[in-house]
Amino acid sequence: MNLARVVGTVVATRKEASMTGSTFLVLERLNQEMKSTGEFLVGVDAVGAGEDEVVLYAGGSSARQTAVTRDRPADAVIMAIVDSFTIGDKTVFRR
Amino acid sequence: MNLARVVGTVVATRKEASMTGSTFLVLERLNQEMKSTGEFLVGVDAVGAGEDEVVLYAGGSSARQTAVTRDRPADAVIMAIVDSFTIGDKTVFRR
Amino acid sequence: MNLARVVGTVVATRKEASMTGSTFLVLERLNQEMKSTGEFLVGVDAVGAGEDEVVLYAGGSSARQTAVTRDRPADAVIMAIVDSFTIGDKTVFRR
Amino acid sequence: MNLARVVGTVVATRKEASMTGSTFLVLERLNQEMKSTGEFLVGVDAVGAGEDEVVLYAGGSSARQTAVTRDRPADAVIMAIVDSFTIGDKTVFRR
Amino acid sequence: MNLARVVGTVVATRKEASMTGSTFLVLERLNQEMKSTGEFLVGVDAVGAGEDEVVLYAGGSSARQTAVTRDRPADAVIMAIVDSFTIGDKTVFRR
Repeated sequence: MNLARVVGTVVATRKEASMTGSTFLVLERLNQEMKSTGEFLVGVDAVGAGEDEVVLYAGGSSARQTAVTRDRPADAVIMAIVDSFTIGDKTVFRR
Repeated sequence: MNLARVVGTVVATRKEASMTGSTFLVLERLNQEMKSTGEFLVGVDAVGAGEDEVVLYAGGSSARQTAVTRDRPADAVIMAIVDSFTIGDKTVFRR
Repeated sequence: MNLARVVGTVVATRKEASMTGSTFLVLERLNQEMKSTGEFLVGVDAVGAGEDEVVLYAGGSSARQTAVTRDRPADAVIMAIVDSFTIGDKTVFRR
Repeated sequence: MNLARVVGTVVATRKEASMTGSTFLVLERLNQEMKSTGEFLVGVDAVGAGEDEVVLYAGGSSARQTAVTRDRPADAVIMAIVDSFTIGDKTVFRR
Repeated sequence: MNLARVVGTVVATRKEASMTGSTFLVLERLNQEMKSTGEFLVGVDAVGAGEDEVVLYAGGSSARQTAVTRDRPADAVIMAIVDSFTIGDKTVFRR
């Protein structure tokens, strides 16, 4: 999994039928210091994440192991909303 | 998923039999500002995307979760045509 | 698999239901000289790894081949704690 | 999928039994201008590709979706020989 | 698949139970000129490869398609020992 921030939304009405109802969120990857890595991707939301939230996403076939993505052409899913994370003794982020 | 623009077409008559009828489109990855990342790939079209359209594609095994790619040797599929996307308050792209 | 050091922890109470009870550890990838590659990721712990330990993690669908990750949206799993490793004649690391 | 040129051959007599009879070809990835990206990989040939031919290959689990790679430890397969490709109005390559 | 040289060994006694008996080898990726790409990874040995040998490894779910890796959390497997490889007319490596 990777840390990311939700920074935007993609609207797509013409899509593979199985994706109807999916929410596509734009994710900015974060490093262990909460700084952007400069990488952006689009993930399906499985946990009700909102704009600006720090999340964990899973990629590849593991992205299909949620109720909203099973058997669908989704290769990234937001599967957790981060409350806090620590590196060594330091709390880098708290929601 | 990633944002990309459809920039070309690949014609291949000698191919794995299961790929007969597939449309191979050349995709240029876009970043969150609609600029090219300099990465190009070839995806199978599952949604009737045309030249210059902004699309979402899925990679890996998730690329096989559409009617036109199931059980076929395809590792990237265009599974949505983007109408618009926003980053924060800003609409970066509208079709 | 890749070598990594456990450097932190992620707490996430709102997550995909199947992930309840998973421990999310922040991993810093190490190269063959035990130096950081600058890449960080989050893995599920399958072996009881602790802070500062050197581990092996597996990614992709292989990350789901453990008791704690099966059928879950996890794309990286710590599947071994490293006792030692050698490059040529040299023991680079011993626990 | 990605565009590549067949630039060489790998001979390996000691290999996983299921790979007996597979042809391993060295591939040089090409960009959309037919220039090398500097990336090389080894793919199994599923379409009778020859030296210097421009091909499409698929990676990951999708590489196992051909008759010659099914259930085998192959992570890249040549699944099409390119006749031509165009970027915008320009035919960049014709066989 | 990719070309690599076996450069070391990892010892890990605490590991996912299904990995008992696996040999973890450190691999240094090679390019088409037999030079190191600077990338290192750890693979499970499926063919009895020894130190300094040039091998092919497969990654991702394809790494589980051997007798020693099936259903195990392994994302890279050595599935062939290279006898020789050629680029164009030139034999770059002979065992």
